[in-house]
Amino acid sequence: MTVVSVPTGNPYEVLIGGGLLDSLGSHTAELRPKARVVCLVSDTNVWPLYGQQTQKSLEDAGLTVYPYIIQAGEQSKCGAVWLELLGFMAEHKLTRTDLMAALGGGVVGDLTGFAAATYLRGIDYIQIPTTLLAAVDSSVGGKTAIDLPRGKNLVGAFHQPILVLCDTDTLHTLPADIFLDGCAEVIKYGILYDADLFDHLEQYGPAFDREAVITRCIECKRDVVVLDERDTGLRMKLNLGHTIGHAVESLSDYTLSHGKSVAIGTAIIARASAACGHTAPDVRNAILHILNRFGLPTHTAQTAAALTEAALSDKKRSGGTIRLILPREIGDCFIHPLPAEDLEDFIKKGL
Amino acid sequence: MTVVSVPTGNPYEVLIGGGLLDSLGSHTAELRPKARVVCLVSDTNVWPLYGQQTQKSLEDAGLTVYPYIIQAGEQSKCGAVWLELLGFMAEHKLTRTDLMAALGGGVVGDLTGFAAATYLRGIDYIQIPTTLLAAVDSSVGGKTAIDLPRGKNLVGAFHQPILVLCDTDTLHTLPADIFLDGCAEVIKYGILYDADLFDHLEQYGPAFDREAVITRCIECKRDVVVLDERDTGLRMKLNLGHTIGHAVESLSDYTLSHGKSVAIGTAIIARASAACGHTAPDVRNAILHILNRFGLPTHTAQTAAALTEAALSDKKRSGGTIRLILPREIGDCFIHPLPAEDLEDFIKKGL
Repeated sequence: MTVVSVPTGNPYEVLIGGGLLDSLGSHTAELRPKARVVCLVSDTNVWPLYGQQTQKSLEDAGLTVYPYIIQAGEQSKCGAVWLELLGFMAEHKLTRTDLMAALGGGVVGDLTGFAAATYLRGIDYIQIPTTLLAAVDSSVGGKTAIDLPRGKNLVGAFHQPILVLCDTDTLHTLPADIFLDGCAEVIKYGILYDADLFDHLEQYGPAFDREAVITRCIECKRDVVVLDERDTGLRMKLNLGHTIGHAVESLSDYTLSHGKSVAIGTAIIARASAACGHTAPDVRNAILHILNRFGLPTHTAQTAAALTEAALSDKKRSGGTIRLILPREIGDCFIHPLPAEDLEDFIKKGL
Repeated sequence: MTVVSVPTGNPYEVLIGGGLLDSLGSHTAELRPKARVVCLVSDTNVWPLYGQQTQKSLEDAGLTVYPYIIQAGEQSKCGAVWLELLGFMAEHKLTRTDLMAALGGGVVGDLTGFAAATYLRGIDYIQIPTTLLAAVDSSVGGKTAIDLPRGKNLVGAFHQPILVLCDTDTLHTLPADIFLDGCAEVIKYGILYDADLFDHLEQYGPAFDREAVITRCIECKRDVVVLDERDTGLRMKLNLGHTIGHAVESLSDYTLSHGKSVAIGTAIIARASAACGHTAPDVRNAILHILNRFGLPTHTAQTAAALTEAALSDKKRSGGTIRLILPREIGDCFIHPLPAEDLEDFIKKGL
């Protein structure tokens, strides 16, 4: 087991390793001895696999568990499900010293985190990510959210978990396609912060060392989250490939996964940035090569005009300037402010 | 005009005085020069009275205003209206540098504050309280909330406003009954913190000095909010009369107003506390006298059993202990932990 400490305003630890699920109850009881009840949120995919084991671990530690199982899929990350979940908690009279726990991927984690952030104006919660994407991305950092019909993650709160428990054994049951989705984010950390991580991924491909790589990604995310807990500047770098990636994802009506969309966004960025002279050709090639190595897509049939329009409706826009993240070297990226009216030309160079 | 500074994590000022509404735009532009848009929330009672004036003040300062008018009344402080409001903001593409403003009483303020706390994970907002209750209570302190079918204020966030602008002229149009509602909270501050304030209220009754009294109440609230921004202990004192008051309010199906319910709760506390020897008889009498002086009710037809059951379903309960706020002297109260099973007996002594 590896432990990563996250010294945010409310500090917490991320535990990474095999067989950790059974120790959830003892960790929880140690962290919050006053808690009596845990509202355990999961979805229809994950609950049949790990629900009972998780519930038993908490119950063995003396906690009462109220499971709440949502339909798997992004459509559950909405206001209606969030309100139902809060109603369920109120019905079971959870108090401010009780807890929530999120067993699942990003949808379960984001929804649970936002419910925990807002129930009685905030109670504590635990993240138990069971997808690679959730492990390296959404479970750490305290960004919680639900979607609106107008767009994803438009509503939410910053609310750090009290514990993140990542049992790498749960990744074994992940469908290959969902695993691949997380790989795009893992590669992102290599490009952004760590040439050694990038090299390891290039060498081993999808057979990379689970515990070591997840740990390294979480350390990278931790370092930037601690410096920018409220996402006002530095944390923006984590959006590498995401501005255009979100546009690809949204234009596909979310039939293309987040990870694959981000892979395409990253590839477009690499090509366009090289064409503009911001990124050396060998850096561009290394990025395109590793995406191919993992079997991730690097092209879209969408036009630059459509991508631009979709990207400009994204919430990360501030006034008339888009802040793109461009690679200088592998392991070193920079923020590049671009006037909104120049975005289409830029994207055109990267298609 | 009086200015009260509130040095919370994000410090802000409360401006109190006549004719302030016209200066809203200039204050806003000075505070947030980057803001382009204000989503101005009000209700069907307040908008016809002060909507145009408020909108014009903001527009004269160069801001684009999107008014959003909710149906007046507690039933608008719900998940459905909150989601509609967020959808409205997303539709108008408000960004993180744009603003919200709440023109109205507690319902408008709480709903707007919670929308501002959660839209894009938090944008800035301004409170413009137009009721006495909102001016001295809900507009300062950053507690935002919506109700669930199971209870009031069960969902919310701590999110401080960037400015509170209290134009005392708006209180002139307040129906007498709504004004009285706020008087119960004003009296509460006297009992809790300030014998001089109490004496002024006893002397002048409902004709008290608006600017001076509101200022003093806000200073009292400010002092406790600053020490306990997240409501973990000290701020609990502000619940004087509220545990039983909420029970009275809820048992009346909210046909009895918050202020009148709190007045009854305070009277029950004063009588029961005196009966238990915690409060001297002359302090009890002074409290009952001032409530009568304002024409506020001091009795309920509810039984101790019904009040106890309703009070115990209140969210402020933590485990098996109720923390009641009891007066020691006028201007000095203390927290009295009571086992939940003793509450009914206690209430019985105060009916």
